[in-house]
Amino acid sequence: MKVLVLGADGYLGWPTCMYFSKRGHDVVGVDNYFRRSAAMELDCEPLIAVPNLAQRAKTWREMTDKDIHIHIGDITDYPFLKSIFKDCRPDVVIHYAEQPSAPYSMMDHDKAAFTVRNNLISTLNVAYAVQEVVPECHIVKLGTMGEYGTPEIDIEEGFIEIEHKGRKDRFLFPRQASSLYHTTKIQDTDMLWFYIRTWGIRATDLMQGPVYGISTEGADLNPSLMPHFSYDEIFGTVLNRFVVQAIAGHPLTIYGKGDQIRGYLNIKDTLACVYLSAMNPADPGELRIFNQVTETFSVNELAEKVKRVGDRLGYAVEVRNYENPRVEKEEHYYNPTYTGLLELGLKAHYLTDEVLVEMFRVVERHKSNIHDHKIFRGIKWQQESRKVQVEAQVG
Amino acid sequence: MKVLVLGADGYLGWPTCMYFSKRGHDVVGVDNYFRRSAAMELDCEPLIAVPNLAQRAKTWREMTDKDIHIHIGDITDYPFLKSIFKDCRPDVVIHYAEQPSAPYSMMDHDKAAFTVRNNLISTLNVAYAVQEVVPECHIVKLGTMGEYGTPEIDIEEGFIEIEHKGRKDRFLFPRQASSLYHTTKIQDTDMLWFYIRTWGIRATDLMQGPVYGISTEGADLNPSLMPHFSYDEIFGTVLNRFVVQAIAGHPLTIYGKGDQIRGYLNIKDTLACVYLSAMNPADPGELRIFNQVTETFSVNELAEKVKRVGDRLGYAVEVRNYENPRVEKEEHYYNPTYTGLLELGLKAHYLTDEVLVEMFRVVERHKSNIHDHKIFRGIKWQQESRKVQVEAQVG
Repeated sequence: MKVLVLGADGYLGWPTCMYFSKRGHDVVGVDNYFRRSAAMELDCEPLIAVPNLAQRAKTWREMTDKDIHIHIGDITDYPFLKSIFKDCRPDVVIHYAEQPSAPYSMMDHDKAAFTVRNNLISTLNVAYAVQEVVPECHIVKLGTMGEYGTPEIDIEEGFIEIEHKGRKDRFLFPRQASSLYHTTKIQDTDMLWFYIRTWGIRATDLMQGPVYGISTEGADLNPSLMPHFSYDEIFGTVLNRFVVQAIAGHPLTIYGKGDQIRGYLNIKDTLACVYLSAMNPADPGELRIFNQVTETFSVNELAEKVKRVGDRLGYAVEVRNYENPRVEKEEHYYNPTYTGLLELGLKAHYLTDEVLVEMFRVVERHKSNIHDHKIFRGIKWQQESRKVQVEAQVG
Repeated sequence: MKVLVLGADGYLGWPTCMYFSKRGHDVVGVDNYFRRSAAMELDCEPLIAVPNLAQRAKTWREMTDKDIHIHIGDITDYPFLKSIFKDCRPDVVIHYAEQPSAPYSMMDHDKAAFTVRNNLISTLNVAYAVQEVVPECHIVKLGTMGEYGTPEIDIEEGFIEIEHKGRKDRFLFPRQASSLYHTTKIQDTDMLWFYIRTWGIRATDLMQGPVYGISTEGADLNPSLMPHFSYDEIFGTVLNRFVVQAIAGHPLTIYGKGDQIRGYLNIKDTLACVYLSAMNPADPGELRIFNQVTETFSVNELAEKVKRVGDRLGYAVEVRNYENPRVEKEEHYYNPTYTGLLELGLKAHYLTDEVLVEMFRVVERHKSNIHDHKIFRGIKWQQESRKVQVEAQVG
């Protein structure tokens, strides 16, 4: 199978390239190094400096005798993306090339506008390139559970049947996110769903929860093949951050009460989910949606786990409740469905103490790279002056 | 009241400027003349060539002794928009500055990308300028009934309570549009609603149906003050097009079966609705949604009305069913609610034969400007090669 991975340099993109390559597929990876340049600009580089994509592909070939072809460029440039589609004619395109950080999208106007332009034009371009070059190509797009927000009703896998005044119809599950980034993921789903209905193209939208972990079968071959592992507030995900904080002696940064519940998954399961989706494509004209999580936890539960394991390993882990810089419900109902990927054959890696110990062991080896000032800066969702009023609204 | 009108040169923008100015409000109008340049590029200029905005403002001052201040520029340029907000400090901003044509958004990749960028970045910029400069300012944004599509359930005014597995929540009414343009209006609502929840700003979203008419109290003062009246397939709305087609001796262009039902309103009612919304603003933290139509018709019913009036006026009006270039349901359930604006005090102008006769009389005076080749070119929603498959989906 010919696999085109967009955003191939990212936390999930590079492990995905290796995962498909190892299984005998032809992989082409594309990235514009946005994440690297933004991390440099914002002084929040990942824990481990890894070589550029061309060098990583070279190492991969040395280790496995398999090629991953790399193109560096910006997929919001349509002629660039279309030329890659024409060269590669992928059977599946995996679209990780969105700006993935909620805090980044809330920092200022320019970063908000970048997030909107990048995420929507990249998705538009993917839809157009598929339609114009390889209409049968299956689009696997990463969505996020954050699109659903925290509704008072059970969260279904993407669609819901609504009965209203004695009549019924089926709709995308109503979405209401709590950052601009998450809102752009609602928007790109709407756009992709429109083109699927109109053109008969096909996509799988993977509504992913926050991912954790650093170890994958490919990354474990050679340190150069490790993923970008961010521990800062902007690009780091919560469990990865807590492990680094525990090792650095920084209090675990719980925002507000910590009763926010989300669905989580191990990076190994992300790879398996994307692979299962690619191997079992959506039908032409279908937008297939899976909720890509394996278990749910509150932030407090995650902190307790990290503290228990950290304390056992000799760290005196402190947990602290910070004033929440975000606007979000800190206590809420949360009951998402996530059976579709299990039915496709996913064997989940759950968050056991052993998994946490393994994460601690890898991060410990890079402890000297941890810079305390990168851990928390408190990027706020709203101006101080208008705070009270909005809290009343959200509450 | 200080009123900022974005998209002040458009079919609705300029009449809105005059409507508020006449009632004693300070009006600032902004436009980048996109509509004029696109119409020139695509050979589809409106029926009546009207002077530029600066000249129209001058004529308005001569006729009424009132000033409308004009700025020419692109509101996707945030420093430009912010400087206008700082100068003007509006109490209400009326956002007409989106690319408003469904066929334009479906012509090719570049026009699709322009539509996404223009419509989303303009709305993002309006939200940011309000938050950063005048947080109490009321945003009046034009939405479209097309965002709802044609669901099997009754269409409420913007929000719906959903009961699911014994629990309830209130959501934006689920939206599923049938063009990229209409999809961008779903997307901008999601974005504005996010910032309203997060920042406590306020907006009214007017879900407008296709507008018809050429006569307004301001336009009737002087031919230079008339609105852009488009009769082409790209920028013209259906009833305006049918009247021009009847006078030109062109068959009325019904797409497919003609049983597509939509809600319509007279341009005079658009002005009244926007004015009523501005005079009765949404609360801080509120997204207030009105369905801005006054009556519903099928395309066949509109054609019958135009034929009846046209025949009476001596035109031998032919009605013809064209192969539908769009992807849309040609027979469907349609039951929208539209009581909110009536409750605010709207006195509707319904589509009587007298209204049609008046439209015929104005268009007749400009009959020599009608160019037959602009009337229909059949911009298609999909490539011919993939047509059958998609029709099966949509049906």
